[in-house]
Amino acid sequence: MSERDLTNRVLLGPGPSNVNPRVTQSMLKGMLGHLDPEFWPITDQVCAMLREVFHTKGDFTLPISATGMAGMESAFCNLIEPGDKVVVIVNGFFGTRMVDVASRCGADVHKVDVPWGSPVLPEIVEDVLKKESNVKAVAFVHAETSTGVLSPIKEITGVIHEHEALVILDVVTSLGGVKFLMDEWDVDVCYSASQKCLGAPPGMSPISFSGRAIDSIKARKTQVQSYYLDILNLKNYWSKRKMYHHTAPILMIYALREALLMMMEEGLENRWARHSMNAAALRAGLESLGLELLADPKYRAAPLTTVKVPDGIEASKVIQALYGEYNLEIGNGLGDFKDKIWRIGLMGDSCKSSNVLMLLSALENVLPKQGFETGVGVAVAEAERVLLGK
Amino acid sequence: MSERDLTNRVLLGPGPSNVNPRVTQSMLKGMLGHLDPEFWPITDQVCAMLREVFHTKGDFTLPISATGMAGMESAFCNLIEPGDKVVVIVNGFFGTRMVDVASRCGADVHKVDVPWGSPVLPEIVEDVLKKESNVKAVAFVHAETSTGVLSPIKEITGVIHEHEALVILDVVTSLGGVKFLMDEWDVDVCYSASQKCLGAPPGMSPISFSGRAIDSIKARKTQVQSYYLDILNLKNYWSKRKMYHHTAPILMIYALREALLMMMEEGLENRWARHSMNAAALRAGLESLGLELLADPKYRAAPLTTVKVPDGIEASKVIQALYGEYNLEIGNGLGDFKDKIWRIGLMGDSCKSSNVLMLLSALENVLPKQGFETGVGVAVAEAERVLLGK
Repeated sequence: MSERDLTNRVLLGPGPSNVNPRVTQSMLKGMLGHLDPEFWPITDQVCAMLREVFHTKGDFTLPISATGMAGMESAFCNLIEPGDKVVVIVNGFFGTRMVDVASRCGADVHKVDVPWGSPVLPEIVEDVLKKESNVKAVAFVHAETSTGVLSPIKEITGVIHEHEALVILDVVTSLGGVKFLMDEWDVDVCYSASQKCLGAPPGMSPISFSGRAIDSIKARKTQVQSYYLDILNLKNYWSKRKMYHHTAPILMIYALREALLMMMEEGLENRWARHSMNAAALRAGLESLGLELLADPKYRAAPLTTVKVPDGIEASKVIQALYGEYNLEIGNGLGDFKDKIWRIGLMGDSCKSSNVLMLLSALENVLPKQGFETGVGVAVAEAERVLLGK
Repeated sequence: MSERDLTNRVLLGPGPSNVNPRVTQSMLKGMLGHLDPEFWPITDQVCAMLREVFHTKGDFTLPISATGMAGMESAFCNLIEPGDKVVVIVNGFFGTRMVDVASRCGADVHKVDVPWGSPVLPEIVEDVLKKESNVKAVAFVHAETSTGVLSPIKEITGVIHEHEALVILDVVTSLGGVKFLMDEWDVDVCYSASQKCLGAPPGMSPISFSGRAIDSIKARKTQVQSYYLDILNLKNYWSKRKMYHHTAPILMIYALREALLMMMEEGLENRWARHSMNAAALRAGLESLGLELLADPKYRAAPLTTVKVPDGIEASKVIQALYGEYNLEIGNGLGDFKDKIWRIGLMGDSCKSSNVLMLLSALENVLPKQGFETGVGVAVAEAERVLLGK
């Protein structure tokens, strides 16, 4: 592939996804200064739309000027003081990341392992909190990007708040692609990333803090260890006071705004339905090929489908063939699941029926060459049936 | 101003600067995954060009995926462990920021105040280091973005290394606009920002660590408190190993690459000369209007000119008039200098003679309306003389 072909890559990995041309074109608007009065309505508009997307009235809702990992770091470093006890329920790679990030904040981390591929369930959390006292926060991932597993939220936050702990939730892969209601589900801090279901380029990490979380931050005895991620300082810039904090990444904010405008036009419920429908079609197609999905049907995150690599097949060879022959990306497994699963993302602008059909037809071509027999046209037909509601 | 006019804003503040259309257009290239093999040559190319720009052979040279403030934070949090003694020489707003950031890393900070508007000089550093023992690092700013003052480096790093401390240097406003030679001047950590003299949009922070700095980091007893900014982890992603760390902001990297390519084509020495020439013309013009410059002529940073607001004139009214009547941005003072100085940036793509002449002519129109009499055409003529070498 030469660089001039880059525009054709179809991104069906775990993110970044393809970005709608309307979003990239918005970045051609001229640069503004980060303290320019003309920039303020744009920041206000972005924050207002993010509140819609998170389903929160919370005032401390803004995009961190860095990628999703910085969002995770911001959640922990604002909420956690050295010595605070934090329970992290780990059911995949990003749960493990949370343990690392929380430890670096000086947290007393209690890691609870759930098998990768299983969801976090209320009874698991209940069991832990019965045994542990003085837990400051419980952290887990809504849609594990390493496994495609979606955990229930509302039941779990109830348990956590009964034990007077705060809820830290990773909604990187879920936000904008599956139902998520921050206020109604009583989440205290949640963060996402611009490049997945939100449909913007990578580089921004929307985050939101509940009033309870902000009260806790205001009562800290120690300073937040990161200047860059300090939410109270950030709020002074993003809010009406517009105090200089850092030079906002202007063009990324134009792009995020345009992506959010497109979400508003589509409607959040329609968007969730689109992600759900295309995932169902993809999954029907994959299973008709004789492939096995990793996640339990009850706990599958629509934006990310995880497929077990069949015995005798080399995961990376299939990925390479899809790159080389179809200019199409799917992801390998992460961590323990490397070479054991493929991760197929249908997120944001990449989440469309034509991509489902193209990938299935590509797999029907590529897999047999790697020694895994499939029928011809079977998967595409199966997916079409789902899409047509037949 | 309606949004469709945004493209016309001429940015002559302290950054961001205008971005060449070639740079913004490069962001229209299609998205790639952050682990896509086709993306690796792009990351390698960016790092190689950054080594050229920093004038270093150092392998630990890469762009942090966030703005310049995150670069500052990365410098301190990688180098400093809790309790380490750090001397920060403060001669402006960003020196004060360094104190804040270093404190949040748990440093035992010794702040040394130099009057705002004065340079950091070797004798100041020598005096401090004679009195203090066990200093881990000395930090200061090359070109203070709040004052436009440029401090000498080579003489100071010599003093610091004699006392066996490490040098942390902010080159946010200087890199790419004035001579800077990291290896020859023996700097241990320095960081910059994409949106000033490098000519890219805001959002990335190039950083470089010396071998001495990396040895010190490898000998740490405690973990780096930030996962996102941990240079050893970042290196694993950016280097040949390409290990997943975070989702790189792909489009920002395309833009940074294009901006760096343009620097390479222009040549660094030519670029320094361009910044120097336009600054000289601007300054001659401003002084011919009867305005007084803040910085001592021996210590002026070419990319940023600071002008004292004359008695009886309201700084912000002039700024507003330039916005409103000329669609042109200059900056107000920061911190102690708010409303006391204007900050005029000539950086990257904004650094051109036509902008110098336009601003001077705008000032000849705007200042008299605010009660500060100027001649007509005087400043423009003076600037033209400098530009023509007359």
